[in-house]
Amino acid sequence: MTLEYHRLYTFTKNILLKIGCPEQDASKAADVLLSADLRGVDSHGVARLSGYVRLWEKKRINAVPDIKIVHETPSTAVVDGDAGLGLVVAPFAMNVAIQKAKTAGTGWVSVKNSNHYGIAGYHAMMALEEDMIGLSFTNASPLVAPTFSKERLLGTNPIAVAIPAGQEAPFVADMATTTAANGKLEILQRKNSDAPTGWVQDQEGRPTKDANGVKKGGALLPLGGDREHGSHKGYALGAIVDIFSAVLSGANYGPWVPPFVAFLEPDPNPVGEGLGHFFGAMRIDAFRPASEFKGHMDNWIQRFRNANPTDGNSKVIIPGDPERELEQERIKSGIPLLQPVYDDLCGLGDKFGVEL
Amino acid sequence: MTLEYHRLYTFTKNILLKIGCPEQDASKAADVLLSADLRGVDSHGVARLSGYVRLWEKKRINAVPDIKIVHETPSTAVVDGDAGLGLVVAPFAMNVAIQKAKTAGTGWVSVKNSNHYGIAGYHAMMALEEDMIGLSFTNASPLVAPTFSKERLLGTNPIAVAIPAGQEAPFVADMATTTAANGKLEILQRKNSDAPTGWVQDQEGRPTKDANGVKKGGALLPLGGDREHGSHKGYALGAIVDIFSAVLSGANYGPWVPPFVAFLEPDPNPVGEGLGHFFGAMRIDAFRPASEFKGHMDNWIQRFRNANPTDGNSKVIIPGDPERELEQERIKSGIPLLQPVYDDLCGLGDKFGVEL
Repeated sequence: MTLEYHRLYTFTKNILLKIGCPEQDASKAADVLLSADLRGVDSHGVARLSGYVRLWEKKRINAVPDIKIVHETPSTAVVDGDAGLGLVVAPFAMNVAIQKAKTAGTGWVSVKNSNHYGIAGYHAMMALEEDMIGLSFTNASPLVAPTFSKERLLGTNPIAVAIPAGQEAPFVADMATTTAANGKLEILQRKNSDAPTGWVQDQEGRPTKDANGVKKGGALLPLGGDREHGSHKGYALGAIVDIFSAVLSGANYGPWVPPFVAFLEPDPNPVGEGLGHFFGAMRIDAFRPASEFKGHMDNWIQRFRNANPTDGNSKVIIPGDPERELEQERIKSGIPLLQPVYDDLCGLGDKFGVEL
Repeated sequence: MTLEYHRLYTFTKNILLKIGCPEQDASKAADVLLSADLRGVDSHGVARLSGYVRLWEKKRINAVPDIKIVHETPSTAVVDGDAGLGLVVAPFAMNVAIQKAKTAGTGWVSVKNSNHYGIAGYHAMMALEEDMIGLSFTNASPLVAPTFSKERLLGTNPIAVAIPAGQEAPFVADMATTTAANGKLEILQRKNSDAPTGWVQDQEGRPTKDANGVKKGGALLPLGGDREHGSHKGYALGAIVDIFSAVLSGANYGPWVPPFVAFLEPDPNPVGEGLGHFFGAMRIDAFRPASEFKGHMDNWIQRFRNANPTDGNSKVIIPGDPERELEQERIKSGIPLLQPVYDDLCGLGDKFGVEL
């Protein structure tokens, strides 16, 4: 089943209006959410819409938040998201970073009291049109076991970095700090396939190929997979994202991050407010003239893309290439939805009287 | 063979004085270099001293550099290292980042025209005594093949992040963006042991267990090891380090980074000057009161350290713990040197009339 982009966008926006989001917030949130579907991160797009609605029903999402700066210096700010949709809080905060960068050269914003913010890359890419480098991190519900831990203490805590180029398309890295994102496991679950070793451990902390291992009390593994292959580095990266997003801002961190699913209650003794994000914007010309930088970025990209490829591969991929190609295709030919996702959206539409 | 720290420090400093470094630079460079030996990164310590000297003999290192800021904004600067020792250029640049952070909240410095800067962690840790978070990246000679590339286009491009805590010791991550650092391969080479799969590819880009695979024209692999285990993420991280360090500053990037070994000539058509670094300093209280932050960092560290460990492991490790423990031990009981390293230092001492 494939639905046209604007149909899904309008549906998403109308649902968000129904739960009380102001017009501008509903538009922005729909834009952020759908960017995941366009870029092929199907787990973070409309498939999550009813999850956000259930959090709103539980009063864990505030549809009319008073999002504001609570502390600042020339190049930094802390933003309180007032329990708003992360899809709205994050663009607000990234915009603060961009405005700071205009005068101070760079801007760095840590956010508390937010919720799931969609794909990390969307917010990092906001910097591109300003000739800035953008960074976007977020923590998330604990699904990942640090090296040597049986317990899940970290989220998949993504890092996104967007870097402008000249003639070439921008460099856009957007990655979970785990071996594989949870969405990839879900694909294997649907196919009833095994997961590669290094993706998952069981509830006793032993390596497992069971694609349902996380659901059974196991954990996703940090990038690297095991100690011998550098999982302590993936764990450190996830930890840095957690600390920048939440310990700097006053959000919940580590195992205290509230779960995305509404049927699980947040920890009754939180260490902060909501979940946290971290954003950065660096003006290119705060370092060197933008035209010089972009010329060298083009050279960088061309040299890497044209490197001698390994057998069976046609070329080296520049981060962001596959997502951009998919986006161009899906804008034209529509967004494929799995039957359960389509059914879920129809149910949501019926409930709120919104036509899909 | 174990040598007392101060003996090695004095020797290193005296050698650097002999090649013409000013007193203060020789002290700082010896401090930086020896911190690697203390923290167990033996590949980056005195074992490299004669390598630096050979670069000076080739006139690729300037012992009396005029290190200066060539561009700046309130929160950023570009530093020209004037081909000085990276061991001297890097602390200069990190200090610029720290001074910027004092007024702007954060400071971000990209460096060109530098050389190998020792361990990344040293410079990041300079921020700790100022109640700041420190970041330190550098690019390096190309030894790493991006995912799907036969060619070596990136260095082991480390990321170091140092975060202050309160009662607990600071969080200090310092990691190559490869599965394993080159120093770990050298250990296997000396033992004539195989490397685990996922560390190295051969010159045809195929996985190999040959610990000498890189020397034979192969490459180190990005963190993740192969595409299925997320090597495209390690590649993206190494690329981000390269771009922040060199494309932002005007240094050489990717395959153009000059080799550390003096017997290999730099590319005759460079794309920039020397190699590049990137430093960041973020004042904690530019986000929230430092005492609040440190209390939560203590809680973070204690929760992670006391997590239920997997069988056969006594506890979860906080990044920086092993290096700090080793440092405490080696300050007391001395620094172990391999015979070839000791012989090399003796030769260097004879050549310059410096007693080891």
